[in-house]
Amino acid sequence: MKIAVLGTGEVGRRLATKLASLGHAVTLGSRTADNADATQWAAESGGEHGTFAQAAAGADLVVNATGGMVSLVALEAAGAENLNGKVLIDVANALDFSEGFPPKIVQPEGISLGEQIQQAFPQARVVKTLNTMGNALMVDPSRVPGHHTVFLSGNDDAAKAEVAQLLQSFGWTPAQITDLGDLSSARGTEQFVSLWLRLYGSLGSPDFNIAVIKP
Amino acid sequence: MKIAVLGTGEVGRRLATKLASLGHAVTLGSRTADNADATQWAAESGGEHGTFAQAAAGADLVVNATGGMVSLVALEAAGAENLNGKVLIDVANALDFSEGFPPKIVQPEGISLGEQIQQAFPQARVVKTLNTMGNALMVDPSRVPGHHTVFLSGNDDAAKAEVAQLLQSFGWTPAQITDLGDLSSARGTEQFVSLWLRLYGSLGSPDFNIAVIKP
Repeated sequence: MKIAVLGTGEVGRRLATKLASLGHAVTLGSRTADNADATQWAAESGGEHGTFAQAAAGADLVVNATGGMVSLVALEAAGAENLNGKVLIDVANALDFSEGFPPKIVQPEGISLGEQIQQAFPQARVVKTLNTMGNALMVDPSRVPGHHTVFLSGNDDAAKAEVAQLLQSFGWTPAQITDLGDLSSARGTEQFVSLWLRLYGSLGSPDFNIAVIKP
Repeated sequence: MKIAVLGTGEVGRRLATKLASLGHAVTLGSRTADNADATQWAAESGGEHGTFAQAAAGADLVVNATGGMVSLVALEAAGAENLNGKVLIDVANALDFSEGFPPKIVQPEGISLGEQIQQAFPQARVVKTLNTMGNALMVDPSRVPGHHTVFLSGNDDAAKAEVAQLLQSFGWTPAQITDLGDLSSARGTEQFVSLWLRLYGSLGSPDFNIAVIKP
């Protein structure tokens, strides 16, 4: 599949590398065409790089791995015409570090970033996922043993099913993939990051996850 | 131990009943001395009931199980002089249902309810716990099988150790009790309730919990 990964930070490069290793044609998108991290990534991985718009234009599926505080601007630069009708996986969290650590989870009027993206790009098929864990675990769930959970939120069931397939190609089992319902459930997974950050602080490693346990 | 449980709702009565069954002298506190739920609870359980102040005055340990939106007012009624020096277990969540479901988690300026209580009653030894699960599970962790997690947040290590003992008397194992650190970590557990509510919606039962899983 042709996949655009928007965002050249650690999360974007991690996802892009995994997707390329699985045989997808990946373009890493950034604000400028000559982004150093993207250029290096493309040279090392055999993938492509380009602007947000160039990456999204040729893609069948788009991943938003930009920083959550700038995701709407980045997706605007990618262009609605390059997102319409496509599955848009949103893994971003809007964290405001302006007052230091811990950052505040930014949800204006209580609305999640995932919903804001869906509202701004109503023809995109937004699925929120993977935003509740460290980036190494996203693409290699075996880093944490046994049962643990990855969440899906979205308004488009077919899009969620497609994303669940992609997650399975990363190593997530169907039992680990928990569909929370419509995209408003991303409010919960985004707010969970506040607890995740504290657990990261007390455990000293991002190699942990939560499991939903029921009788 | 003499324990005041403030709040006559389902959570307060559940905790009061469990504590009474464990042999503690429990007083269920409410806004008024003649609260019907408190009167009935006392008659059925052999415990006592009274105003917030009456309950807290005689107690060695106080549990805030009032609704989170009114907890500060309730504790003001209990009186700082009746809280000073005592372990104050805060299990409340400030949920604003004014715009319907899902409610918003209320944390003015990003400050948790637990911290607000500590700030208002600096001589109380506030420990936030049990606020990440349904009330039946709070006092009977065996309702969910295997490993799952209860969190502790607080600035007073001795108070947290005392609360951990109380949790163990409810059936929580030391391995299940996770100390997140100081009281600011209650921001994380309170915000988690947003995800908890969605899981409750999709699972259809409050008998679930999360487990923190690490290698």
